[in-house]
Amino acid sequence: MKATIKIIGFDADDTLWVNEPNYRAIERQFFEILKPWFSEKEATNELFKTEMQNLEMYGFGAKGFMLSMIETAIRISDNKITSVEISRIIEIGKNLLNEPITLLDNVEMVLQRLQPNYKLILATKGDLLDQERKLVKSGLAKYFHHIEIMSDKKENNYRKLINRLDIQPQDFVMVGNSVKSDILPVINIGAKAIHIPYEITWLHEQHHEETDSSKFVTVNNLSEILQIL
Amino acid sequence: MKATIKIIGFDADDTLWVNEPNYRAIERQFFEILKPWFSEKEATNELFKTEMQNLEMYGFGAKGFMLSMIETAIRISDNKITSVEISRIIEIGKNLLNEPITLLDNVEMVLQRLQPNYKLILATKGDLLDQERKLVKSGLAKYFHHIEIMSDKKENNYRKLINRLDIQPQDFVMVGNSVKSDILPVINIGAKAIHIPYEITWLHEQHHEETDSSKFVTVNNLSEILQIL
Repeated sequence: MKATIKIIGFDADDTLWVNEPNYRAIERQFFEILKPWFSEKEATNELFKTEMQNLEMYGFGAKGFMLSMIETAIRISDNKITSVEISRIIEIGKNLLNEPITLLDNVEMVLQRLQPNYKLILATKGDLLDQERKLVKSGLAKYFHHIEIMSDKKENNYRKLINRLDIQPQDFVMVGNSVKSDILPVINIGAKAIHIPYEITWLHEQHHEETDSSKFVTVNNLSEILQIL
Repeated sequence: MKATIKIIGFDADDTLWVNEPNYRAIERQFFEILKPWFSEKEATNELFKTEMQNLEMYGFGAKGFMLSMIETAIRISDNKITSVEISRIIEIGKNLLNEPITLLDNVEMVLQRLQPNYKLILATKGDLLDQERKLVKSGLAKYFHHIEIMSDKKENNYRKLINRLDIQPQDFVMVGNSVKSDILPVINIGAKAIHIPYEITWLHEQHHEETDSSKFVTVNNLSEILQIL
């Protein structure tokens, strides 16, 4: 793979640092608030339903998640939730935005080793401000040329990304934890991809179809990509 | 100016299409909901205060605006606002996201004339998904090479933008309606700027210091930039 690669795109959340477990922790606090009306299982389903209904309108990220929590709470409590409880939902959402960054294993060492030989970019579909803040807090900003914010991670979004970077698909490799978002659309447009599974995957990112794993590499730890790149 | 310019950056909201008046219309509906507790003037001040407090956390865009409306309503009603009314705030916020696009005068003609000679980009600090959607709805997507989403429009953000575009500051001209965001930071880093005032400016974007207007051009209508570029 080494020979042709010019730019390495890194997914951020759950590839470089912990993210999904933070959302899960906030969800548990949210379910506590909803306890009088719904069981955790029902609340999980209802929240996911609201998120999916709003996804096209809100996109990905913490603010849309906060709005969907509020909407779900009002709906499933049948308007019985009070503004005090809604304030509490806003508060836990703000905590999510202010969460400290926990780097995954070996991240800094790997970036340090790759940076002299490649242009490294962060390619993420979160909210720009939020991802910039996380990058600064992570201390990793110095390794990245810039952040590419994508409204989604479908084939067309990657095509635009590669066009914007003024390279050919074969010059690009994407590294990430989501088969659906970081791997399949990338190999489908002729670029390369390295999959690093993470312990938790958001339901929306879960991939259930059979994938031809001969077309991409899977590693268990980020440090293993140094043997490939 | 013509000779050196390679890339033209266009601000989007209130430069290419109507935006601020849409926010004002939503605010009026919001104030209607708050009428039992506060006068419009007080509610305006309180909403602006909340927006400024949350700006660093939420950034710019409709979702942060929605969350700030909800927070303001709860605070100034002293927790008396009900979840039915909060639902209504979410609803008017969603209407804002789904607002049709109204192009400003001569926009399409100007882009059509400039596109063969320059790389045109949209440089905006809104939400990527929201701006992409507006661009598609506007029918202007074919004129733009891509959208550059900036977390803010300060000197450092423009420096990063120009670095990412692989050009020199003097190769870049920014066109926009906000002296504070589209003009001053751009000329301060050695790039060029053309100011097109718009009828309404959001309080946060209003610029009160004296500006040396010999350093940038002001035009009254977008079509006048064709005489400069």
